[in-house]
Amino acid sequence: MDWFIEYYNGSALMIKVKRKLFEKRSLQHIQIFETVDFGKMLVLDGKIQLTEKDETFYHEMLVHPAMFMHEYPSKVLVIGGGDGGAVREVLKHEPNEVVMVEIDRDVIEACRKFIGIDKGALNDSRVNIINEDGVEFVRNAKEHFDVIIVDGTDPNPVSQSLISQDFYSCCGRISDYFVTQSQSPFAQREYFEAILRNAQFENRRIYIGFVPTYPLGLWSYLIGSNTRKIELDLDTIRGRFEERKIETVYYTPEVHVSAFSLPKWLDDLVKLF
Amino acid sequence: MDWFIEYYNGSALMIKVKRKLFEKRSLQHIQIFETVDFGKMLVLDGKIQLTEKDETFYHEMLVHPAMFMHEYPSKVLVIGGGDGGAVREVLKHEPNEVVMVEIDRDVIEACRKFIGIDKGALNDSRVNIINEDGVEFVRNAKEHFDVIIVDGTDPNPVSQSLISQDFYSCCGRISDYFVTQSQSPFAQREYFEAILRNAQFENRRIYIGFVPTYPLGLWSYLIGSNTRKIELDLDTIRGRFEERKIETVYYTPEVHVSAFSLPKWLDDLVKLF
Repeated sequence: MDWFIEYYNGSALMIKVKRKLFEKRSLQHIQIFETVDFGKMLVLDGKIQLTEKDETFYHEMLVHPAMFMHEYPSKVLVIGGGDGGAVREVLKHEPNEVVMVEIDRDVIEACRKFIGIDKGALNDSRVNIINEDGVEFVRNAKEHFDVIIVDGTDPNPVSQSLISQDFYSCCGRISDYFVTQSQSPFAQREYFEAILRNAQFENRRIYIGFVPTYPLGLWSYLIGSNTRKIELDLDTIRGRFEERKIETVYYTPEVHVSAFSLPKWLDDLVKLF
Repeated sequence: MDWFIEYYNGSALMIKVKRKLFEKRSLQHIQIFETVDFGKMLVLDGKIQLTEKDETFYHEMLVHPAMFMHEYPSKVLVIGGGDGGAVREVLKHEPNEVVMVEIDRDVIEACRKFIGIDKGALNDSRVNIINEDGVEFVRNAKEHFDVIIVDGTDPNPVSQSLISQDFYSCCGRISDYFVTQSQSPFAQREYFEAILRNAQFENRRIYIGFVPTYPLGLWSYLIGSNTRKIELDLDTIRGRFEERKIETVYYTPEVHVSAFSLPKWLDDLVKLF
C-alpha cells in the first residue's frame, strides 16, 4: 500500500504509508499504519483517529481546558479514548481517580501493542478501565465526576448515541464540567450542528484548535456545565497551570483563552443554537 | 478530470472538481477549476491559491490585522495578489490609494474573467495596478506606504525573491507596517524558517489562522515594523473596527488578538529566530 485516503465532503486527505502494522474487523474496523511523515496512525472505520505527529494537538486541547477550569479535578471520567492519549493528559493533573469507559477492548489492546501513546497511563493504578457502552454507564452512574471528557469517533453505529440528548443530559447531571470533541464545523457541519442541538447545558461554549490530520485541519470542542462558569480568566488559568507544573506541546493558558475566539462565521453559526 | 491533488510532504489534499474552466502555461502554470464543494478554485504551479469557499479566511487574516494596527492606512501597497482578494479587503478601510504590483498579468486577467472574487476592486479608481517584479518595485520605490501586504505564492522561481532579506529590508524601509503570508509552519517548515530568518524588523510577530484548503489547514502570517508596535490591545482594535464599519466573514477584533497566541511548539520554534 502506498497512500491511505480519508474522504470528506468533496475533498480527501491522503497520507503516505510505509506499511500496515495491524488490522482487525470486530466492533469497528481497526487499522494501524506506519506512515512516512506522521509516525504511527490509528484509523477506525476508515477515519484517522490519531497520528503520532499531531495527536498532542488534539488530546491537549480536549483535556486541558476543562481540567484547568476546575480548581481541583480529582475524579475524572473519560468516555472513549481507547488509545490512552486523553488519560495520559488527565494524569498530568494528578487526579485521585480516572475512570475510562471504552466500548471497544480491541482498540485498547491494539493501541497498547502497536502505538503506545498512552505512555503507560492505561496501566496507572489510579486508572480504572471499564469495557462498557458509555451511554449505559452514565445513565446508571451514581457517582459524581469533577470532569467528564468524551473522546469519541465520528458518529457511527458504535458512537452515534454519544451525541444524543439523553447522553449529554446524563453527563450534565453527574459532572461539574463536561467536554466533548465536536467534529469539524467546516467539513462536517451536520455532525457539528447535531451536537450543538443536543448538548444543552446551563453554560456552554465552543472552542477550536488545529488538528492537521483531522478533516481540513479545523477542529472543535464543546464544553458545558450546569453549575460552573466557563472559566476564561487568563490569570486564573495561568495560576493553575503554573501550580500544576504541566508540560505540553500545544496547550498554553494563552491558547486556552484564545481558542474561544471563534471566526465570525462560526460564532454566528453557534449563536443559532 | 475527477480529483485535483496537491501533494505536500508525505500527505496530499484531494479536491473533487466538476470541470476545468481555464488553463495557461506562461510565467506560471495557471489553472482554474469549478469544484464540487469549494466553488471556483485557482491553482498556480500545482498549488491551490484560493477556493471561493475559504478565500475570505485567508484574505481577511492577511489584510485586516495590519490595516487595523495602523490608525489611518491611507496608502497601501499590495505585492502579488493578482486574484484581487487582498485589494478587495484593503478597500474596506477606505484608503486614498492602493498600489498593486503583480508580476503575472495573466493571473489578473484569468481571475477577473473566471473567478471575480475582487468584486470590482481591481477596477476601482483608487487602485493602481503595476505589472512589475515586486522586488524591483520596492528596491526603487521613493514613496512611503502606510501598510505593505505581500500576497505571494509558495516560493517558486517567480516568487522566490519575495522571501529574500533584501526584499524584506526594502519593505521595512518604506512602510509603517509590513505583513506577508508565511506558509504553513507545520507542513512547510523549511519555507517558514527561511522567512523567519530573512524577515528582520525592529518589531515582529507571527500569527496564525485556519485556511482549510492550504496545507493541512494551519496557515501563518508575519507582521513587522521598524517604527511601530505590534498592536494587540483589544479596545484599540475594536474601536477602529467599529469606526470603519467593516463587514467580515472570518475576522473579528477578538480573532485578531487571539491569532497571536501560538501553540507552544510554534512559539518555541519562532523564538529560535
